[in-house]
Amino acid sequence: MPAQHSRIDQLLKVGQDGAAVTVAGWVRTRRDSKQGFSFIELNDGSCMANLQVVVDAAVPGYAETIKQVHTGCSIRAAGELKASPGAKQRIELHARTLDLVGVADAEAYPLQKKRHSFEFLREIAHLRPRTNTFGAIARVRSRVSYAVHNFFQSRGFVYVHTPIITTNDCEGAGEMFTVTTLGGESKVERRESREQQATTGSPPALNSPLSTLDYSTDFFGKRAALTVSGQLEAETYATSVGPCYTFGPTFRAENSNTPRHLAEFWMIEPEMPFYELPDDMELAESFIKHLIADALENCAEDMQFFNERIDTNVLATLKSILEHEFKRVSYTEAVDILTSTGREWEYPVGWGQNLQAEHERFLTEQHFKQPIIVYDYPRSIKPFYMFCNEDGKTVRAMDVLVPGVGEIIGGSQREHRLDMLIARMHETGLNPEEYWWYLDLRRYGTVPHAGFGLGLERMLLLLTGMQNIRDVIPFPRTPKNAEF
Amino acid sequence: MPAQHSRIDQLLKVGQDGAAVTVAGWVRTRRDSKQGFSFIELNDGSCMANLQVVVDAAVPGYAETIKQVHTGCSIRAAGELKASPGAKQRIELHARTLDLVGVADAEAYPLQKKRHSFEFLREIAHLRPRTNTFGAIARVRSRVSYAVHNFFQSRGFVYVHTPIITTNDCEGAGEMFTVTTLGGESKVERRESREQQATTGSPPALNSPLSTLDYSTDFFGKRAALTVSGQLEAETYATSVGPCYTFGPTFRAENSNTPRHLAEFWMIEPEMPFYELPDDMELAESFIKHLIADALENCAEDMQFFNERIDTNVLATLKSILEHEFKRVSYTEAVDILTSTGREWEYPVGWGQNLQAEHERFLTEQHFKQPIIVYDYPRSIKPFYMFCNEDGKTVRAMDVLVPGVGEIIGGSQREHRLDMLIARMHETGLNPEEYWWYLDLRRYGTVPHAGFGLGLERMLLLLTGMQNIRDVIPFPRTPKNAEF
Repeated sequence: MPAQHSRIDQLLKVGQDGAAVTVAGWVRTRRDSKQGFSFIELNDGSCMANLQVVVDAAVPGYAETIKQVHTGCSIRAAGELKASPGAKQRIELHARTLDLVGVADAEAYPLQKKRHSFEFLREIAHLRPRTNTFGAIARVRSRVSYAVHNFFQSRGFVYVHTPIITTNDCEGAGEMFTVTTLGGESKVERRESREQQATTGSPPALNSPLSTLDYSTDFFGKRAALTVSGQLEAETYATSVGPCYTFGPTFRAENSNTPRHLAEFWMIEPEMPFYELPDDMELAESFIKHLIADALENCAEDMQFFNERIDTNVLATLKSILEHEFKRVSYTEAVDILTSTGREWEYPVGWGQNLQAEHERFLTEQHFKQPIIVYDYPRSIKPFYMFCNEDGKTVRAMDVLVPGVGEIIGGSQREHRLDMLIARMHETGLNPEEYWWYLDLRRYGTVPHAGFGLGLERMLLLLTGMQNIRDVIPFPRTPKNAEF
Repeated sequence: MPAQHSRIDQLLKVGQDGAAVTVAGWVRTRRDSKQGFSFIELNDGSCMANLQVVVDAAVPGYAETIKQVHTGCSIRAAGELKASPGAKQRIELHARTLDLVGVADAEAYPLQKKRHSFEFLREIAHLRPRTNTFGAIARVRSRVSYAVHNFFQSRGFVYVHTPIITTNDCEGAGEMFTVTTLGGESKVERRESREQQATTGSPPALNSPLSTLDYSTDFFGKRAALTVSGQLEAETYATSVGPCYTFGPTFRAENSNTPRHLAEFWMIEPEMPFYELPDDMELAESFIKHLIADALENCAEDMQFFNERIDTNVLATLKSILEHEFKRVSYTEAVDILTSTGREWEYPVGWGQNLQAEHERFLTEQHFKQPIIVYDYPRSIKPFYMFCNEDGKTVRAMDVLVPGVGEIIGGSQREHRLDMLIARMHETGLNPEEYWWYLDLRRYGTVPHAGFGLGLERMLLLLTGMQNIRDVIPFPRTPKNAEF
């Protein structure tokens, strides 16, 4: 806020009776008393709670202004804080001046004072942060992101910006989006067409059709794509500047319209030299617990809201996660547990099969009733870069499973032995020559190392109790949807 | 580091004579004394300085191991810290055990103990963070990124992840990359081709050629591109949850091969409701000063290195920036100064022309000899979203210019008046219907607001004295270059 404005969260916490303040924000509701004054519930986004502004008829311009003060409009008010006689708030503002800054038509404003469905709000992603739920999500998302940095920076990790546009293919991670300057009309051409049309009245020329995409003439000289993981590049920093982490957008071109898939999401990927799998698990556990404890401490009001309005179990689930040491369970043990329950599964359980969400949630929510870390997965279902155990059958992978969400972290110790890594690339159909630089990390001063990935949105589902991943990212990208 | 390892930066600072420690890292050099012991300079990336490890012939396996300990190899050493008799270090490690973790062939290792050109190091971007210069850049980049978050979070700003894939076009910002799933072979197809080839020996089938790109069948159902700015979307959060900021990757498909251009870079864009241009300038000045002061305080060793090896003026420049209040100079005054110098310019100076780098650097480096903020630019050379002044000729734009780099921040107060914004869209050839959601912010509770953008890499050029922007980002993307 400019110096002359006070933040409502601060006023509600520490504002003193008698203080002269100016506030500015958006009107949530207005109530007129019969005694000739009005109550405005004012929100400035700094917290969920509103400041009650009492506007007396004696305020200059009251009569003309107040009738335009509808839900959604913006105002500025100056006056004096007073202890509130109402039970709902500690203090309120008695306005001496009231300025209507921006109107909002009472009929047209899409966010009327009623509950709107999340589906409806997704259609107006530009306005939904003005609601209680999405305001709270925005604040928690921001705080959790900061907590990510605090966690790693306080441990001396280096934040690395791995590339978004890449010609690598971190095999096993799904479909990739192509990044190209071919086939599209450029902005200059578009503007020229528009100008031509404006001056001559003739329609703009069509693009010359491309018979095929020849990536050798493309901007990067070969096919480039959006990253699906910064891991491989992060390994170059872990093996030079030490423990590091990425935190950036990641992409999947999977044509999945589900409440758990996004085409664009934010991921955190730490990578640590000299870490082996048990060190990796320990860091992952500390990390999850740090993020939860931080949100409970720093977003108390918003977390309370989620517990009341979104999922009445969310606080209990989070506290339970904090209180338990995550149990380490080998994949083989996990499969034994699943096969011995006698339950009917939608997807078959058997050694060598991937664990599905139903299996993961059964293990963490019903069998162990606490967070668990499943480790040592079958080599045949995991990517080439994971460290091969001596049994010849398993790799040092680990997944963290938590009640309420299921898998929240996936990680592994990396294969740091050059010969074994090359063998695994052949085994999985990759060409080692394309990964020459990645192999260099094993040629020159190789070290055991490990890392993991956490999807920020999945963490937010856990923290907020929200059910649809499109609701915990500001502008979700999904098939047929990158509108705004 | 796993619990059993000590970080070298900590040992060098506070390690006590007599302490038993284990360290692990990469060998920078080895020297053998004639008395039958060796000195290893060990670096673990936690700081620029190395730990001197003294390995006596009595250490188990000395004879076989030590001859393999070359520059670039990784080792683990355990022993006792001792006050060092040498002047170069306070303490050193007397090893009791020495493990060679990963070899590095003495001849093949690309980073021999000599100076390498930055051009050469760009070819091995996966190894260059093992050098002093690029290790220092990595640490400073990480710290500055953290300082960005600290600055805004401590002021109650909300961190917003604006979308990377967008169908908007923040007009005026240059060429955009298309994001598509058309025209490219999918991973599954590629793997199938490879398998087919492996089993049948026949070459993989070619893609069916595309006669044109029909974006209606594309993943997002229309042409999507990589963002050039998160500003417009950030405005939706500034006008709901209050002051906010973005910090994420940004893209330009400009075919520019210069030391100042990247196709992919990281940008910070704060956006503040109820801020007008003077508030915006004040925040920009505080922000720059915060980042500089933070780096000087928290990266002292690395900053000293830049001053000694990269640019002997860099510390003086930074301290001078801290000491001056940034001078506010209107565009009109700036043009008057430039035209009255009598200098010959490569680009002509005149009211209504953009200021070029040569003009900006003259103003800040030679005329004012301090940071300046140029404001109120001609309306005709600025984008549609900037607030129009009453003179009908200028908009409330501002650029921060600093010695050493020139323009480092660009910002503006935004046009928040619906009718004026629509008029400006027509004036600049935009279709208001395509920006319906952006106009909604002016339809419903509009407020004056302002923001600015800082390119992280440009800030790093200022902080480090480096000359080529490709050297301050881990994996630079430029025309024909997205190799790894």
